[in-house]
Amino acid sequence: MTPVTSFSLSPSSGSRAMSKPLYLHEDRLFSSDPAQRAIARELYSSVKSLPILSPHGHTDPSWFADNLPFENATTLFLAPDHYIYRMLYSQGIDMDAVGVGSKDGPSTADARKAWHIYAAHQHLFRGTPSFMWMSHVFGEIMGFDVALDASTADHYFDRIGECLASPEYRPRALFERFNIDLLATTEGPTDTLEHHQKIKDSGWKGRVVTAYRPDPVIDPEHEDFHDKLKIFGELTGEDVYSWKGYLRAHRNRRDVFMTYGATSTDHGHPTAQTANLSHSDTKDLFHRVLKKRVSPEDAELFRAQMLTEMARMSLDDGLTMQIHPGSFRNHNKQIFDRYGRDKGADMPLPTNYVHALKPLLDAFGNEKNLTVILFTLDETSYARELAPLAGHYPILKLGPSWWFHDSPEGMMRFREQVTETAGFYNTVGFNDDTRAFLSIPARHDVARRIDSTFLARLVAEHRMPVEDAAELIEDLTYNLPKAAYKL
Amino acid sequence: MTPVTSFSLSPSSGSRAMSKPLYLHEDRLFSSDPAQRAIARELYSSVKSLPILSPHGHTDPSWFADNLPFENATTLFLAPDHYIYRMLYSQGIDMDAVGVGSKDGPSTADARKAWHIYAAHQHLFRGTPSFMWMSHVFGEIMGFDVALDASTADHYFDRIGECLASPEYRPRALFERFNIDLLATTEGPTDTLEHHQKIKDSGWKGRVVTAYRPDPVIDPEHEDFHDKLKIFGELTGEDVYSWKGYLRAHRNRRDVFMTYGATSTDHGHPTAQTANLSHSDTKDLFHRVLKKRVSPEDAELFRAQMLTEMARMSLDDGLTMQIHPGSFRNHNKQIFDRYGRDKGADMPLPTNYVHALKPLLDAFGNEKNLTVILFTLDETSYARELAPLAGHYPILKLGPSWWFHDSPEGMMRFREQVTETAGFYNTVGFNDDTRAFLSIPARHDVARRIDSTFLARLVAEHRMPVEDAAELIEDLTYNLPKAAYKL
Amino acid sequence: MTPVTSFSLSPSSGSRAMSKPLYLHEDRLFSSDPAQRAIARELYSSVKSLPILSPHGHTDPSWFADNLPFENATTLFLAPDHYIYRMLYSQGIDMDAVGVGSKDGPSTADARKAWHIYAAHQHLFRGTPSFMWMSHVFGEIMGFDVALDASTADHYFDRIGECLASPEYRPRALFERFNIDLLATTEGPTDTLEHHQKIKDSGWKGRVVTAYRPDPVIDPEHEDFHDKLKIFGELTGEDVYSWKGYLRAHRNRRDVFMTYGATSTDHGHPTAQTANLSHSDTKDLFHRVLKKRVSPEDAELFRAQMLTEMARMSLDDGLTMQIHPGSFRNHNKQIFDRYGRDKGADMPLPTNYVHALKPLLDAFGNEKNLTVILFTLDETSYARELAPLAGHYPILKLGPSWWFHDSPEGMMRFREQVTETAGFYNTVGFNDDTRAFLSIPARHDVARRIDSTFLARLVAEHRMPVEDAAELIEDLTYNLPKAAYKL
Repeated sequence: MTPVTSFSLSPSSGSRAMSKPLYLHEDRLFSSDPAQRAIARELYSSVKSLPILSPHGHTDPSWFADNLPFENATTLFLAPDHYIYRMLYSQGIDMDAVGVGSKDGPSTADARKAWHIYAAHQHLFRGTPSFMWMSHVFGEIMGFDVALDASTADHYFDRIGECLASPEYRPRALFERFNIDLLATTEGPTDTLEHHQKIKDSGWKGRVVTAYRPDPVIDPEHEDFHDKLKIFGELTGEDVYSWKGYLRAHRNRRDVFMTYGATSTDHGHPTAQTANLSHSDTKDLFHRVLKKRVSPEDAELFRAQMLTEMARMSLDDGLTMQIHPGSFRNHNKQIFDRYGRDKGADMPLPTNYVHALKPLLDAFGNEKNLTVILFTLDETSYARELAPLAGHYPILKLGPSWWFHDSPEGMMRFREQVTETAGFYNTVGFNDDTRAFLSIPARHDVARRIDSTFLARLVAEHRMPVEDAAELIEDLTYNLPKAAYKL
Repeated sequence: MTPVTSFSLSPSSGSRAMSKPLYLHEDRLFSSDPAQRAIARELYSSVKSLPILSPHGHTDPSWFADNLPFENATTLFLAPDHYIYRMLYSQGIDMDAVGVGSKDGPSTADARKAWHIYAAHQHLFRGTPSFMWMSHVFGEIMGFDVALDASTADHYFDRIGECLASPEYRPRALFERFNIDLLATTEGPTDTLEHHQKIKDSGWKGRVVTAYRPDPVIDPEHEDFHDKLKIFGELTGEDVYSWKGYLRAHRNRRDVFMTYGATSTDHGHPTAQTANLSHSDTKDLFHRVLKKRVSPEDAELFRAQMLTEMARMSLDDGLTMQIHPGSFRNHNKQIFDRYGRDKGADMPLPTNYVHALKPLLDAFGNEKNLTVILFTLDETSYARELAPLAGHYPILKLGPSWWFHDSPEGMMRFREQVTETAGFYNTVGFNDDTRAFLSIPARHDVARRIDSTFLARLVAEHRMPVEDAAELIEDLTYNLPKAAYKL
Repeated sequence: MTPVTSFSLSPSSGSRAMSKPLYLHEDRLFSSDPAQRAIARELYSSVKSLPILSPHGHTDPSWFADNLPFENATTLFLAPDHYIYRMLYSQGIDMDAVGVGSKDGPSTADARKAWHIYAAHQHLFRGTPSFMWMSHVFGEIMGFDVALDASTADHYFDRIGECLASPEYRPRALFERFNIDLLATTEGPTDTLEHHQKIKDSGWKGRVVTAYRPDPVIDPEHEDFHDKLKIFGELTGEDVYSWKGYLRAHRNRRDVFMTYGATSTDHGHPTAQTANLSHSDTKDLFHRVLKKRVSPEDAELFRAQMLTEMARMSLDDGLTMQIHPGSFRNHNKQIFDRYGRDKGADMPLPTNYVHALKPLLDAFGNEKNLTVILFTLDETSYARELAPLAGHYPILKLGPSWWFHDSPEGMMRFREQVTETAGFYNTVGFNDDTRAFLSIPARHDVARRIDSTFLARLVAEHRMPVEDAAELIEDLTYNLPKAAYKL
């Protein structure tokens, strides 16, 4: 990816004589061992320009529906990126000050001032993937050649503002420039999918599809459970307060989501627990969770049972199922009360899979027409549980290293700990899983580089012929996600 | 090891013009850093040809007793190797189709056809130890110089068949060619050891010894517990339904096993739990587990108590004790019902040692004439629990990385996470732990290479003088297993 | 650091013709990759001579108060170092034999003979940090150029004895030679701090400060709880058997400790559990734990509540709070009964932080004037729990890799697993945490080398500009501990 060449900004070089060059080396993330680096370069160069498949993420479909310009550097890069403001917050910088809106409304911070705060704290991001992603965005997408710091903050803010005002930086133009083959967003079961409808109606050729994430009507502990359930019934015309009607409502919405391109469902539960109760026990449980007060045990059991129900539906309609377990959401009560969900205060938990998945696997583990992709925030499960499970059960595949582990070291640990038992072909390539649209090329680029680096080591250590590595890098980049998500 | 040179097959080169060369580089598994590689080569070359000590494994003693030829490629390499067919199964290939027999009888699959399936799916094994082991077997033992794939499947099947029909490929000939000093098999307490008797009687000089694995008469949840217990009584002439008689029966069988060369016992429990109950509590517990229905708690407590009883007996008779805990056996109910045990469907569990071993350690932890070798499927215990325990208690030693972790990355993690706290001398060298006889040289070769690579890094990073590394590689390869297993 | 050049010993070279050179390479611990090594050398050379900050450790303040000579090699290096004698013990060498005193009194072993045992078992320490630390001490502080082994044991014993008798090897002289800016010892709440008073009174300029570790009066399961509580009351003049008086006594002692330079407290609990009970529940709990028999649940709950109380006090008095959880103390009952605490028989446990810290974090997690430094013996928590917590909560910082993990591989895992989520600036530099005064320069040297090595990899892999690494190595070595511990 290169910056849009037709776009030019007058250089304001005089004022930034002291600024440092932007750091974005062409060999970044490759091993410094010359033998390995040469192989990694070769492998990477063969997939560097392949189209992006983004089968799981959290971009906002309204961007592509409305195709309005992004506003400014702060609202685009800072205020919505919890990777960034949580790090600033950990060092005593208020979230309001960097533009994060609260339940009281949008932040009243001046956007330029907020940007200055971020610019002046770049050292906090040393060694983090955020630093690498942002350098990629600034260099490759925004065309900067100086590093962001206090002395260049205004230059950045201004130039980004100018860029965003130009047609080349509208969402659809960027989507095309990013060479995205397919981008999946994630919607709740009560989402009307109007933005996806608008995209469809617009005749734009960009493939933006949805994915079915029914957590709000499956998790009795979700703060909106009862409200969403009501809408769920209205939207589907089903009696969602009867067990049969509730299941029919899910099937109904899954069908509708599929008409908007959905090929997958997604389930973000606190644990990976599954259950396979008898019909009458399930009905009784369902009626208990409909009450205003549900016990934690019943809530957990209902989520567990619903994973099995979702697998059963996937067997019928073919949707690939994703399970993202193990996050203690909204750990910081004070932040949740003031700012709400998804504010960088979710914390990973130890996660068990071998016991937890057994009920679902007993029911459907040996099916050939079902794909369940497992994720984890608990890396101890890679070699101990996930690889052995995926290396045996036909329905199981392993999603890439996720969230806190979506990072060079994290990706490398994933490959090192998973491959020997599960091989490469029980994995599904990369997910960017991001809300930060402009970082998508950066994230896929990191994944392609790390996979190249991992394979280059295997080749240089004579553990794999280079021809196999050449095939693998393409499979990991393109063919595996295409197959696993049925794209 | 080189292929038997006197054995020659007519090359069928014309038909395989497109085939790829077999991949088996002489520097495989060494670091690609030139400094490290040079040291690793040196270290490895000093132990490459040392005899093999195989103090723990699962080969079939009848092979050496009867010395009959192996049948064909499929029955030798494919049908019995759960590392291989579980990977194929994970990708939707039926186990029957690749020759795995079920409870209904042997597979009816055509052996050549089964072999073709395996040959055509070699890509699934990229990056796995199975790929490396099989390449070693094919290249070094079978003399192939082309890689196995769909195009060479017949060539492989034919040539392997011819090899196996020749006297050089009979079990005893291979044993000698492999330069095995000692091979331990593993037998249950009710095994009659007739094959070992036959080996003894034959006058053959190969040292094939047994090891005492009493799980079936110790684990009340074993499916054959009651049947085996009955035979246990008959075989020993003891009243095994009395606590004292039951213990005497164990002592009796241990003595008999020792006459067949046994120097160790082995215990494969779901956890590492031990117990040290009073005599009367133990007796009560014993009588409860003899009943048809035993509670999971009593079953666990009895296994726990029996580890302590076995340690007590080891103090008397000197048998080294091995504990292999933490496997959820037969996780896939459907596979277990159709195919039985040991079919690639065992899954690791988190395993605790610090609390679990305390009762046994309180009783015998400070003894100087007892060796207990600990294994794990839970790598998180390496640095956290196993190394601190072995780095303090005189009776404890650490077995090598096991099963899913018997792999280049797994071995390296073992050394990296264990050495700094436990040193090298609280470890016991390598176990191949395999049913796959022909892979034994390959597995020991990988271990020797990885230990050489690990030591080479320490030397190249100036953390250890090269003279120490030279001594260590020999200790790890030969002297430590010899001492720990009293060979 | 170089040996005191004015100090010279007559070489006894003839008798040690066969001895090996001391192994202490100037490039030790740097990567063998030439590109990385060159960068690491550069980074290391910039901090190699920076003063030592030792904000947490267990040296004996009486050494600096009395400034008496150390006795001999055995009493200085062997008898007090549980890293060393536990390793010997694990291989069957009695602790008495190497000079470790028991509850019956000092060891009756001959010091020279004990030293010989250690010298003859150097191979046990290959690959351990103890080997590296001792080589540093022997080479850099004692001026040896031959390795310690059986043949040089007497030479070592004699020369060390001569050194120790000289003024240059008195505690204060070494403190100055080691270029220590500040050294914190750790005292219990009932310690009279008389040695610190003596240091103060002496007019010596060395900064030796205390730290407040109230475990004995906070942990109802501590063997001295009731005795210490009584003294706690006497010392403070408070009614420590009333909840209010008990809290006032803590505030009182914290104030006193601060007059002896304390800037931190330290808490060594079996778990990281915190609690935030109502005032009346806390009072009830307090009265229950004052009774002779306390339940394990109440003991745990009281420790948990007290962490929150300590945080509350830190908000007032500004002491930085350290939590060192997760050690199963005195695991070997026989050793504890004979030798007492801290004898190399403490074992790490799995440790949870996300649930355990929530009560304290709900109360004070968002404060800007409180620093809580978390440590762990459970490396699985680095990437899963500790980095996400520290990367969000303003009060949390991560202490360096601790105890069994205070080692080259352990430090590297810490950086690799923590940095991408928490960055560098939520960590606090190095703690030597040692009782072994002479090893302090060695330990800081290892930390500086490993941080240089880690940063060099990031630079060589083009993940960080070298200017950032240059700034970071100084921050990690000096500025971060200075800030976190308010030195």
